[in-house]
Amino acid sequence: MSIRVAIVGPTGYTGMHLIELLLHHPGAQLTYLASHRDELPNIAEEFPQLLGRVPDPVAMCRPIDVEAIASEADLVFLALPHRAAMRYVPQFLDEGMRVIDLSADYRLTDQAVYESTYGHSHTDPGHLGEAVYGLPELFRDELPQATLVANPGCYPTACAISLAPLLASGLVLDDPIVINAASGVSGAGRSPAPNLHFVEQSSAFGPYGQIGSHRHQPEIEQTLSTVVDRDIRTLFVPHLLPIERGILETIYLEPSDSTVTEEDLFAALEEAYDTEPFVRVRNDLPNVKYVAGTNFCDVSVRLIDSQHQRRVVVFSALDNMIKGASGQAIQNMNILYELDETTGLP
Amino acid sequence: MSIRVAIVGPTGYTGMHLIELLLHHPGAQLTYLASHRDELPNIAEEFPQLLGRVPDPVAMCRPIDVEAIASEADLVFLALPHRAAMRYVPQFLDEGMRVIDLSADYRLTDQAVYESTYGHSHTDPGHLGEAVYGLPELFRDELPQATLVANPGCYPTACAISLAPLLASGLVLDDPIVINAASGVSGAGRSPAPNLHFVEQSSAFGPYGQIGSHRHQPEIEQTLSTVVDRDIRTLFVPHLLPIERGILETIYLEPSDSTVTEEDLFAALEEAYDTEPFVRVRNDLPNVKYVAGTNFCDVSVRLIDSQHQRRVVVFSALDNMIKGASGQAIQNMNILYELDETTGLP
Amino acid sequence: MSIRVAIVGPTGYTGMHLIELLLHHPGAQLTYLASHRDELPNIAEEFPQLLGRVPDPVAMCRPIDVEAIASEADLVFLALPHRAAMRYVPQFLDEGMRVIDLSADYRLTDQAVYESTYGHSHTDPGHLGEAVYGLPELFRDELPQATLVANPGCYPTACAISLAPLLASGLVLDDPIVINAASGVSGAGRSPAPNLHFVEQSSAFGPYGQIGSHRHQPEIEQTLSTVVDRDIRTLFVPHLLPIERGILETIYLEPSDSTVTEEDLFAALEEAYDTEPFVRVRNDLPNVKYVAGTNFCDVSVRLIDSQHQRRVVVFSALDNMIKGASGQAIQNMNILYELDETTGLP
Amino acid sequence: MSIRVAIVGPTGYTGMHLIELLLHHPGAQLTYLASHRDELPNIAEEFPQLLGRVPDPVAMCRPIDVEAIASEADLVFLALPHRAAMRYVPQFLDEGMRVIDLSADYRLTDQAVYESTYGHSHTDPGHLGEAVYGLPELFRDELPQATLVANPGCYPTACAISLAPLLASGLVLDDPIVINAASGVSGAGRSPAPNLHFVEQSSAFGPYGQIGSHRHQPEIEQTLSTVVDRDIRTLFVPHLLPIERGILETIYLEPSDSTVTEEDLFAALEEAYDTEPFVRVRNDLPNVKYVAGTNFCDVSVRLIDSQHQRRVVVFSALDNMIKGASGQAIQNMNILYELDETTGLP
Repeated sequence: MSIRVAIVGPTGYTGMHLIELLLHHPGAQLTYLASHRDELPNIAEEFPQLLGRVPDPVAMCRPIDVEAIASEADLVFLALPHRAAMRYVPQFLDEGMRVIDLSADYRLTDQAVYESTYGHSHTDPGHLGEAVYGLPELFRDELPQATLVANPGCYPTACAISLAPLLASGLVLDDPIVINAASGVSGAGRSPAPNLHFVEQSSAFGPYGQIGSHRHQPEIEQTLSTVVDRDIRTLFVPHLLPIERGILETIYLEPSDSTVTEEDLFAALEEAYDTEPFVRVRNDLPNVKYVAGTNFCDVSVRLIDSQHQRRVVVFSALDNMIKGASGQAIQNMNILYELDETTGLP
Repeated sequence: MSIRVAIVGPTGYTGMHLIELLLHHPGAQLTYLASHRDELPNIAEEFPQLLGRVPDPVAMCRPIDVEAIASEADLVFLALPHRAAMRYVPQFLDEGMRVIDLSADYRLTDQAVYESTYGHSHTDPGHLGEAVYGLPELFRDELPQATLVANPGCYPTACAISLAPLLASGLVLDDPIVINAASGVSGAGRSPAPNLHFVEQSSAFGPYGQIGSHRHQPEIEQTLSTVVDRDIRTLFVPHLLPIERGILETIYLEPSDSTVTEEDLFAALEEAYDTEPFVRVRNDLPNVKYVAGTNFCDVSVRLIDSQHQRRVVVFSALDNMIKGASGQAIQNMNILYELDETTGLP
Repeated sequence: MSIRVAIVGPTGYTGMHLIELLLHHPGAQLTYLASHRDELPNIAEEFPQLLGRVPDPVAMCRPIDVEAIASEADLVFLALPHRAAMRYVPQFLDEGMRVIDLSADYRLTDQAVYESTYGHSHTDPGHLGEAVYGLPELFRDELPQATLVANPGCYPTACAISLAPLLASGLVLDDPIVINAASGVSGAGRSPAPNLHFVEQSSAFGPYGQIGSHRHQPEIEQTLSTVVDRDIRTLFVPHLLPIERGILETIYLEPSDSTVTEEDLFAALEEAYDTEPFVRVRNDLPNVKYVAGTNFCDVSVRLIDSQHQRRVVVFSALDNMIKGASGQAIQNMNILYELDETTGLP
Repeated sequence: MSIRVAIVGPTGYTGMHLIELLLHHPGAQLTYLASHRDELPNIAEEFPQLLGRVPDPVAMCRPIDVEAIASEADLVFLALPHRAAMRYVPQFLDEGMRVIDLSADYRLTDQAVYESTYGHSHTDPGHLGEAVYGLPELFRDELPQATLVANPGCYPTACAISLAPLLASGLVLDDPIVINAASGVSGAGRSPAPNLHFVEQSSAFGPYGQIGSHRHQPEIEQTLSTVVDRDIRTLFVPHLLPIERGILETIYLEPSDSTVTEEDLFAALEEAYDTEPFVRVRNDLPNVKYVAGTNFCDVSVRLIDSQHQRRVVVFSALDNMIKGASGQAIQNMNILYELDETTGLP
């Protein structure tokens, strides 16, 4: 038996990667591509690499007709921008479908935080409490019975996985937590914009956005606070890398006391992730290249211990399109449908 | 005494490179930046690399007021799209200014060819015959007295320089001439477009456009035909490279008879360019990297001489933004104003 | 039942990609990594992306002990440089193993051509006639019973697939055949060299090698001549692209007579590849990006038909690491062991 | 009158950029290229972009003959690896030449710190005290009379320029100072190495080296301590960017008290650099792209001021080959010879 899957919003990069992954998934079958565009594209013309790979009746995008989708699919992935997603989520839930939402609309449990972060009201606050935050390594137990999964952001996934065990262990202080992050350009989405022109990003590197108020910062803080059950605050500074995909976070912390060793820090990470299929605790240094195209999150840690200072530096790397978006969505699907969690994932 | 220079259309890549070059030019002074935009930009906000480099009153773009420009500048560079350029050329000429037009509007001397190539009528056919094609290596004699210079296209510059001496020498046949060309993305202009998104061009390479009917093909044929005074036809196939700048053309020809040697071919090139400051005849193989950021056009040639075939392969490389556009425009300016031709050029 | 597979020479790029592909192959099991290095590496230290993915006893490379390999594997992939491969092939065949050789040592059936092309004698000429050239789209019938497969070169695969049906159909002339080719840097191998330094290749593009005498040219000519059963000669000119992987060939031909249409050319390609899982005949233009990471070879064709000329331009793109090397080797393995030909291939 | 200049070690990237800059310098003349190689290269074969640009007798590298160099040059740039430089410095000084040393050998004034940082003894400790650290923005007064200039490291230049005024002003605390740095690959030198292969660095990004003990950390601390006259300690974590050139440092500090404003921080930077030709205090965010190919160091600062935290983030960007090496060396030369400091610098 195969899960019948629809994607709403298949013409962005997360949509495209969902398609790529589903084409290799032995337990799921893509049945419906729904687009909000006026001119409905054939997905293989939109993404020429898909030519001949998506069966013809499916390759032709159709309108977002909730009822029709519900009749042809069991599960829907929403790969829409935030704000658009929450228009559709209640409708799909009403039809009895399970929903994995890759937008930010259901990630923040506090409506007020959502509204101040994204600058508009939340039109479906009723489902905020129902959504399960789909980060299996931290919240796996809540997932099997979920009907609505809020698929985590790329940056939050990288730092939640690396920091949660260290904060939980008490080996590092809750403050300061400085997250220096860098992402490939696919993280900025597919809509053309002057700053995303090839010539502008080629050989470029720099910080971007409002420093200290990136939209992922509240999501990071909510996740970490939930895991350790106390209020966690961070400073998050993102940079744009001249590469297609990949995130690296270099995180600066302080050890909780003078007895903490590097071995203690590694032990906390290894204990947390020993049996996790998609987290690799590395002794060497992570690199976006080592995780590109895979669902891995690679983490490592160093204790700087000189006569002048004792600090902890954590490294976390993942592919923003896979573990940071579409791969994690498939991982969540596998859990929802009780498949082996690694099924179909690179 | 310094030439007072205006740029109309400074917010594209050719405009920006003109500014960069003029900032280092000892004999010219940028006095006016004229933009067609409704919101007139400060050029240092448009191109953050220019911060602090363009004197403040000039950095603020002003409207395209022909009279005002004429009162502040001796020479105007038009860095506008084709079709827009020919609206302004007659006005600037009427004001007694000299004009170097970087668009395609005055490159083709035959109005009918222009109109069928660019798909719209020419609104200033009267000046077509007056324009001098600004390729100094081939048409230097006509330049000093020119009031209107049609600055050549990037692709045509590369193949005209490499092919003209070979065709003129009679060492190669006029047919076939197959030009396999590849250009960096800056050649596609600065306007955002889906296919120019960093993610789309990163690690990409392929042909583009209507194969066999690129707009530069008639320009190439006109130039070569003029130089050798007989009708020359080519096949031109362009590709897009995942780099910011640079053009390489690999051109396939046949030797005119069985006595032609590789030495003969080199001799024809060397004789033509021995004293040219911006053409390098290389024994090794050209590469876009060797000419990036410079006004050089590097050329080389090989005779393939096996028992099965005798063919000639010509290589020509230049920086599409410099020798293929703004650098050549400065070179033309230097000639117009009787400066040393290399003044201010990298 | 799973095929037990050994790789000899796993520390180059083709070896690494074989490992990647085999890790996702449901019908094969990697049992032995054999390296010629004095210090035997753990493959996950050699390629950090493999950390945790290759089971530990296998991850540790072992010496090239033919007998030991034969006792643990049914099939051996040789991912060695040419010249090294032919030292081991006879030994593995003597042990009764099947061999897929990714080097050039058994691709050329004529010993003299091999020796003049590679500049050294062939030490195992006896097996030259036994080897099957592993290009399934053209020689599938010979493969199932093969014990020794000569896995084709990357460039030859791209042009054999695109040209064979056109030459066989008689729609194009046998001469001229001009192959303008461009490859990503992985095609140059993994050994450090001054010209392969990141800084040298970044933003670079140019031809390389001895123009007109690349080692793949005889292989191309042998394959095409075999397919059409007459002597075919080509001119092959390779260029190096500033990308990791991918090959694009732009091939210039002449139609055989004035009645040939573009539809005829497409029909010949489509007829040949209609049922092929890994060849896509595209109406739009191929790009290395569309095939990166896949086993596809994308081909297309254009007839240039103006008043001045009639020419045929063929485009062929593949991933030099997948369809041009390791993916095609897996495809050959699938055929040897009567698996579905697409098993485990992206 | 022109300064006669020799370069010892012209075949590395800093040597090459010195040549490029000197070719455009109106007040200096390259007279001698001295290489330690056994086979002395023609510099235009070593760097094909230099073809035809270096006058022939100079283009041919000659041995490192101190006396001959002294007879043909007034000033010598040492572009040698550390350890090699200090073998030659005393010899050139003995000949009465002025020396600008681009290696690390004379940057650290404390011999013991040098020896523990670089892992070998200093063979010329006598000149350590004599060397002037060539960072004009901080130590300009000492330069005009210098005979030996220790040209600063690339990373130290970026953080010394950005941090010195902030630390001196007392607006930020001396501790913590966390420097998250990223450099283009040219910073790793030109010698081929497995990790510098194009394929390894393409699309890669990650930290490197021994975290917390990079060789530039003592140099950074010495410079900052000297400027503010108290002991300054930092944590420096470098990353490698998949680009040719450019450094960006993102530096995390704390404001000294609750009254410090972002305006105060900008004022400190602007006051320090108001009249500096090569430091730009930006309101927008720095990017390596804005400084590539120039001698600029771009700096900016942000005060993060939320209810949960008050932190200072400093950004500093430069071209590691220009302001981080060869451009700064030319700037120092201009000062030594009382030329306008910007002469010949892009």
